[in-house]
Amino acid sequence: MTAEEARRRLAAARVARLATVSAGGRPHLVPVTFAADGDLVYTAVDAKPKTTTRLQRLSNIGGNHRVAVLADSYDEDWSALWWVRADGEAAILDDPAAMAEPVRLLAGRYPQYRDSPPGGPVIAIRVDRWTGWSAR
Amino acid sequence: MTAEEARRRLAAARVARLATVSAGGRPHLVPVTFAADGDLVYTAVDAKPKTTTRLQRLSNIGGNHRVAVLADSYDEDWSALWWVRADGEAAILDDPAAMAEPVRLLAGRYPQYRDSPPGGPVIAIRVDRWTGWSAR
Repeated sequence: MTAEEARRRLAAARVARLATVSAGGRPHLVPVTFAADGDLVYTAVDAKPKTTTRLQRLSNIGGNHRVAVLADSYDEDWSALWWVRADGEAAILDDPAAMAEPVRLLAGRYPQYRDSPPGGPVIAIRVDRWTGWSAR
Repeated sequence: MTAEEARRRLAAARVARLATVSAGGRPHLVPVTFAADGDLVYTAVDAKPKTTTRLQRLSNIGGNHRVAVLADSYDEDWSALWWVRADGEAAILDDPAAMAEPVRLLAGRYPQYRDSPPGGPVIAIRVDRWTGWSAR
């Protein structure tokens, strides 16, 4: 699959999974809602400040910027399987001005965020490698 | 969510995502079919020997046994969201005798493996932490 096709399929997916790595080298994995804009992928955390600082994904990114984002489609007919992966470097945006555009993109994709915008912070991922596979 | 409930939901899921970590500390993420048996989770690789040794997930596990496995359910109604995660230590089984039971469990879940058993190896994960979340 071309990088262009992988980018297109990720951008259209409704859910992805975010992998980060702890200081001790342990992988951490959570499903995320997200918005993609070219080679940037944004996902937001909806947490009170005190909770935020303890969230594993944020503490992991603080120590190791490398992350992976995966979207896939499962079907009992394995000829319909596909997945796409975005590997990149993550930054944490907690300044309201820096968060505004990502939150606008997220609200454009998910009506829930229009009613109740995520409190932040935003994880901004600059993708440096797009990979994908399709059985077809 | 209790560990028991997380274990039950993972065991029933049809697809999960496997996160491993490279020697350089980069996360790697792929979707996997799998079979769970108590605190053991098995997934198989279907690859020729020469390819096998180059597969990123296997090379990562060779250097760092820590892995994470995630299953989730997305719905536009966010009150229906849930996910479960199994964190543990992975071992690579390439001995036919050691692979037999995992491959039997996999074939029991996926008819495709009955027609065409995976060539191996099998990744065997001993789960030491079950985590889960449900919006309901």
